[in-house]
Amino acid sequence: MGGISPFKFLVSREEALNLLLNSIKPIDQTETVPIERAVGRVLAQNLVAKIDAPPFDRAAMDGYAVRAEDTYGASEFNPRVLRLVATLRAGETTDKRLEKGECIRIATGCPIPPGADAVVMAEFAEERGDEVLIYKPVHPLENISPRGEDIKRGEVVIMEGEVLTPAKIGVFAALGLRKALVYRKPRVAVISTGVEIVELGFDLREGCVYDVNSYTLASVLLENGADVTRAPIIPDSYEALKSALYRYLDHDMIVFSGGSSVGERDILAKVIEDEGELVFHGVQIKPGKPTLFGIVKGKPVLGMPGYPASCLSNAYVFLVPAVRKMARLPPKKPNVIRAKMGRRFVSSTGREQFLTVKVVDGKVYPVFKKSGDITSLSRADGYIILPVNLDVINEGDEVEVILFE
Amino acid sequence: MGGISPFKFLVSREEALNLLLNSIKPIDQTETVPIERAVGRVLAQNLVAKIDAPPFDRAAMDGYAVRAEDTYGASEFNPRVLRLVATLRAGETTDKRLEKGECIRIATGCPIPPGADAVVMAEFAEERGDEVLIYKPVHPLENISPRGEDIKRGEVVIMEGEVLTPAKIGVFAALGLRKALVYRKPRVAVISTGVEIVELGFDLREGCVYDVNSYTLASVLLENGADVTRAPIIPDSYEALKSALYRYLDHDMIVFSGGSSVGERDILAKVIEDEGELVFHGVQIKPGKPTLFGIVKGKPVLGMPGYPASCLSNAYVFLVPAVRKMARLPPKKPNVIRAKMGRRFVSSTGREQFLTVKVVDGKVYPVFKKSGDITSLSRADGYIILPVNLDVINEGDEVEVILFE
Repeated sequence: MGGISPFKFLVSREEALNLLLNSIKPIDQTETVPIERAVGRVLAQNLVAKIDAPPFDRAAMDGYAVRAEDTYGASEFNPRVLRLVATLRAGETTDKRLEKGECIRIATGCPIPPGADAVVMAEFAEERGDEVLIYKPVHPLENISPRGEDIKRGEVVIMEGEVLTPAKIGVFAALGLRKALVYRKPRVAVISTGVEIVELGFDLREGCVYDVNSYTLASVLLENGADVTRAPIIPDSYEALKSALYRYLDHDMIVFSGGSSVGERDILAKVIEDEGELVFHGVQIKPGKPTLFGIVKGKPVLGMPGYPASCLSNAYVFLVPAVRKMARLPPKKPNVIRAKMGRRFVSSTGREQFLTVKVVDGKVYPVFKKSGDITSLSRADGYIILPVNLDVINEGDEVEVILFE
Repeated sequence: MGGISPFKFLVSREEALNLLLNSIKPIDQTETVPIERAVGRVLAQNLVAKIDAPPFDRAAMDGYAVRAEDTYGASEFNPRVLRLVATLRAGETTDKRLEKGECIRIATGCPIPPGADAVVMAEFAEERGDEVLIYKPVHPLENISPRGEDIKRGEVVIMEGEVLTPAKIGVFAALGLRKALVYRKPRVAVISTGVEIVELGFDLREGCVYDVNSYTLASVLLENGADVTRAPIIPDSYEALKSALYRYLDHDMIVFSGGSSVGERDILAKVIEDEGELVFHGVQIKPGKPTLFGIVKGKPVLGMPGYPASCLSNAYVFLVPAVRKMARLPPKKPNVIRAKMGRRFVSSTGREQFLTVKVVDGKVYPVFKKSGDITSLSRADGYIILPVNLDVINEGDEVEVILFE
């Protein structure tokens, strides 16, 4: 304390994010999951169709399977007359070969009988006992969905790396596949530190506060494709941090939060320096300056600010892109709206600033809370980013609001 | 078959959606969930703070707790000198009352000792043995986060009906609460029908296809806040449909899919008419005309088209808004981009049309698949809506693409 700056190399937000993302390796391991639980997961191999879909030429309409040439010249006033020789209801098939002058009543989805090459829609036909009057000609292949029209055997239908949507789940189902090979989720350990931090459900001792960060971080991570281990709270001591670091090195990433006082912030940096490589320590951003990142035994280790709001806002800035890269999920597209400020705001931090805001009647108002307050986030609709060199933003100025979702 | 139209009252998409949504009642029942699994759930009661957060006046900075008046007049060249009488590290408290001329070294987050009314930042102080030189004055309350600044006891911090975000999970944690009372999820039964539909993992008999719809519907429902029961496949017979309907009436909503042929489509409509009220049967939309909706014993019953792509596209149009209303989730905001058509497209259906598209190099191209094909959706980036009266859309025309997410 007393004049010692813990942040020797403050990096900009962009630098920090680049350094972080360049160190993150996407997960290579895979796992097999039932398709009913696979939506949102990332496919780990090209899906090659082993069958055609549809598996046979089928009727695309209810009507009459015909030989197209038997219908040529038909019109409302001059119908062609065909002999009805069979009926195919859903799920039924026939080996009966359609001969000249014959037709077969057919339901949508049924296999086209041999000999037929088109379907006349029911609307353009009329049954008279054993005969069917055809009022409109069809050309060959009309109203037939040919085998493999949707998916051809041998075709790559979904590529490795694609995120499984409901439609892609449907492709698996159309091919009869119950399981998908996907990349496993990144496993992230979240560790709140500090002797003043109390686990929920326990009484608050004097001078203590409840653990917020491991819950907010876990929520953000779950929403972004990770499996999370919430570790027990540990003190901000060198030995405790080092021992927790090694205990959770079997995870893909370790996220510490805490160390709000200067001395404590340095301890994690020291542990990382001693055991691996400290990549950055301190970011030119408000809130969230005391953020650090390093690599220990090949595993990324993040140190997040102790203040709940700073911790969560930095989780959106740094942790979300990092874990999504690891999970092979595409970067989250920010939901941005442009709107005018409803009042003046003065900022002179010398750092890029994240200002949480509410949008009321189309106008943007700062959430009147200190940046350490969790309610500065829970009551916000989103945030605006004020550049390093901007001091005043006036009522009526247009800003871009990045909405929380 | 043969001229009998099953759709006596084709309704427009807007009408259908209004009729559907007006019949949907949001879930009233609640359940208690641990907060680490509560993100995305809907709070079922106002959350009233039972404690203050922070629970005590605390230091917002590392530095020295002082009586502000002892610092007045201090400057770089004329420091005030205070006596260092104690040190408070994280989690520590003291009963020592600060007297005139004294200061206490204090870490961020520690309770302000009695008698002190401000904190001098470490940067503006210098220790000399038992004395501390103060180089900058502070005013009373400076660098103190007062008790209740973030959350005041008795205050409503989250309102009934709000969707729990990571920040709101953080509010629960800040109050020491491990559990949240939320509305339970809607329970939706999904039933694929048709003798030609085969469960995944079984061999395809001739003339049969795999069940796609129960998987795509389940995926969409899971993504939109529902719990899903995938029922066994049943035939499209009156008795089977009726018996399945009653078997799953303990759910909040029942979704049938199938009945692609005219006769089959009528059977479910008949069952609903006999057992309850058929609200609409047939929508002026392509794909997805054979969609029906009714109420049986107070429960909404949807009949979706049998074709996988029609079924899924109508799930986005009708089922998603319905289940979100039931789950008390806000309507999904469509992610819309404006872009120019990369080629001409002719449509003359006389119905509103959903055309699935890909966006390549900023230009919009229809996915060249029949609307029945599941790959018409799995390969699309989104869709455009062509109005009833639009026949041709030209290359270069600007369109709104609603992106799948």
